[in-house]
Amino acid sequence: MSKFRVLKKGTKTLARCGVLQTAHGPVKTPFFMPIATKASVKAISSEDIVELKSEIILSNTYHLYLRPGMSVIKKAGGLHKFMNWKRAILTDSGGYQVFSLGAKNDSGKSMVKVSNKGVEFRSTYDGSKHTLTPEKVIRIQEALGSDIMMVLDECPAYPATKVDAKQSMELTTLWAKRCKKTHSKKKQLLFGIIQGSSYKELRIQHAHDLKKFGFDGYAIGGLAVGEPTEKMYQALDWVVPELPADKPRYLMGVGKPEQIYEAVKRGVDMFDCVIPTRNARHGLLYIWRNKDLKGKFYQEIRIKQSKYRLDIKPVDQQCNCVTCKNYSRSYIRHLFSVEEPLAYRLATIHNVHFYLELMQTIAKGI
Amino acid sequence: MSKFRVLKKGTKTLARCGVLQTAHGPVKTPFFMPIATKASVKAISSEDIVELKSEIILSNTYHLYLRPGMSVIKKAGGLHKFMNWKRAILTDSGGYQVFSLGAKNDSGKSMVKVSNKGVEFRSTYDGSKHTLTPEKVIRIQEALGSDIMMVLDECPAYPATKVDAKQSMELTTLWAKRCKKTHSKKKQLLFGIIQGSSYKELRIQHAHDLKKFGFDGYAIGGLAVGEPTEKMYQALDWVVPELPADKPRYLMGVGKPEQIYEAVKRGVDMFDCVIPTRNARHGLLYIWRNKDLKGKFYQEIRIKQSKYRLDIKPVDQQCNCVTCKNYSRSYIRHLFSVEEPLAYRLATIHNVHFYLELMQTIAKGI
Repeated sequence: MSKFRVLKKGTKTLARCGVLQTAHGPVKTPFFMPIATKASVKAISSEDIVELKSEIILSNTYHLYLRPGMSVIKKAGGLHKFMNWKRAILTDSGGYQVFSLGAKNDSGKSMVKVSNKGVEFRSTYDGSKHTLTPEKVIRIQEALGSDIMMVLDECPAYPATKVDAKQSMELTTLWAKRCKKTHSKKKQLLFGIIQGSSYKELRIQHAHDLKKFGFDGYAIGGLAVGEPTEKMYQALDWVVPELPADKPRYLMGVGKPEQIYEAVKRGVDMFDCVIPTRNARHGLLYIWRNKDLKGKFYQEIRIKQSKYRLDIKPVDQQCNCVTCKNYSRSYIRHLFSVEEPLAYRLATIHNVHFYLELMQTIAKGI
Repeated sequence: MSKFRVLKKGTKTLARCGVLQTAHGPVKTPFFMPIATKASVKAISSEDIVELKSEIILSNTYHLYLRPGMSVIKKAGGLHKFMNWKRAILTDSGGYQVFSLGAKNDSGKSMVKVSNKGVEFRSTYDGSKHTLTPEKVIRIQEALGSDIMMVLDECPAYPATKVDAKQSMELTTLWAKRCKKTHSKKKQLLFGIIQGSSYKELRIQHAHDLKKFGFDGYAIGGLAVGEPTEKMYQALDWVVPELPADKPRYLMGVGKPEQIYEAVKRGVDMFDCVIPTRNARHGLLYIWRNKDLKGKFYQEIRIKQSKYRLDIKPVDQQCNCVTCKNYSRSYIRHLFSVEEPLAYRLATIHNVHFYLELMQTIAKGI
């Protein structure tokens, strides 16, 4: 029985609402996952995320594996207990960080070594040497106890030649097969990741290749890596129709509010991105313009600007988050200007709330 | 009618319990004030302080006057509204920071200029020139809307010669008189500050001099400035018996848990100190040993130490704070080791809770 049920479909688009059952409760789709890179959504607590009503968060295997390390997480009884988060968690495989954080040697060449076996890399923390294999990333994620695990994949940089894209796609297929074979704890879902860069033929082929393994869901990877937004939408238009309708679809690392909205229309159910949390810490806050999602439906404000000095309105008068209910733009601007740590928390709460409300608003419109 | 009522007195000591009425509600004595230097108790929110059940906080006039500046606080309708804190606030006069943060010229000489009129100094933020006078610090604090205001005083460094200590004491008396005269908003209490360094004669004389003005409470200043703890206790033994029994007594900038306990026994009602919050941000946490306050009744632990790596107990098993109810030593150690901002908040909540529980425990024993 599939863990995913579609409850409603858009009439003019591929958009859909549904619910994904996980070992830590149901998660309504479409959803956005706040990112707890190192077992903490930066600047906020698990209680804050409960208050924000997020049903799922994402955490990064690469970081957790290196810091605090698996012995610590195992001792705690898994990632949920370690960070006191009782709802669902998705973990990535670590592959993306291996490449994006990979050290370079003096000639600027990557020190990450990829072979069929897996990937060898040096820790971003202390330069120590490590290897991740498809088998190992499953064992790590099973020990983390995440509700949704991702296969190890190789994500080519953009742009990639067709030859490179094909090679990396084939390696990803090989690894996906071995991940699937290693996957033993069936309460934890396992998702495949479709690569193929910006090549229609490869994208479609890879969707077909991975579909055969019968994953619990399918991620579309290798997007939001620097390509124009139109190319991202195009890849979705190619891939989504090839994916099984009864499995959730996850667009990794996306994105801006309008990109999420457009991707939902194209049939995507799941998203994650550092944008709301990272921007919050830089004082870039989201405010609603039109909750009907027409046109430029939101605005970004830079709360550090001097024009907010005497502005005693909340960040967004249409927002019900803890930050907007309790504090003014003037106060938050002050906290940023004197670098008070509370600034980062209040801003993060607001932006995550905006993204979660965006998902609800999109869902209502389907 | 005095705003302060003593409800219970110690039998063998000068300790007392009572309640101080403020424009923002009653505050049970003896109490400790968490410090919101720049309109935020560093790393926690006003909602956190409500949850911690603190009835009063302290904020610093020097910082607020320079950042965000009075126009911003006035626009918000006062400091309470600015930081969304509905209970009592004590503000200092700014004098202490003028001296402690005072810039020095190339020859190492202080650029702070003191005259009978007031004190001229340069901003720690941008070097701009400012003047504080007794009249001005009252007007600023009246605009801040603090529930307890402090007079402008000159706090001599330790050690000070008797001549210097006397001169600075006499200046403080002159300024105290002018503060008292300027004080117009009687809902806001005004406290005098007793100086006199480590000289018994001066301390007693100054208590007498200030008592004549009829302040709403009396602070003992010029302590916790580097003198041995015994000298601090000695100064209390000299001064407290000279102060009116029906007015609250405030030991500024103190201190360590055992110092607070000893000072309560010597008749002090009010305390403030950066120790719990600053130590929290450095990973130094307080845990209870004996709640009967006998001997070394608490312990400091350095949560960053590797021995806590696999320690899944709460910071303090006897503590009911949000941090101890939800997170382990292992998790908090991890947050510190990867410098997650949540570390500072969880640690601060715990240490402030410890200090507030210390005050309750001391009160129960009276």
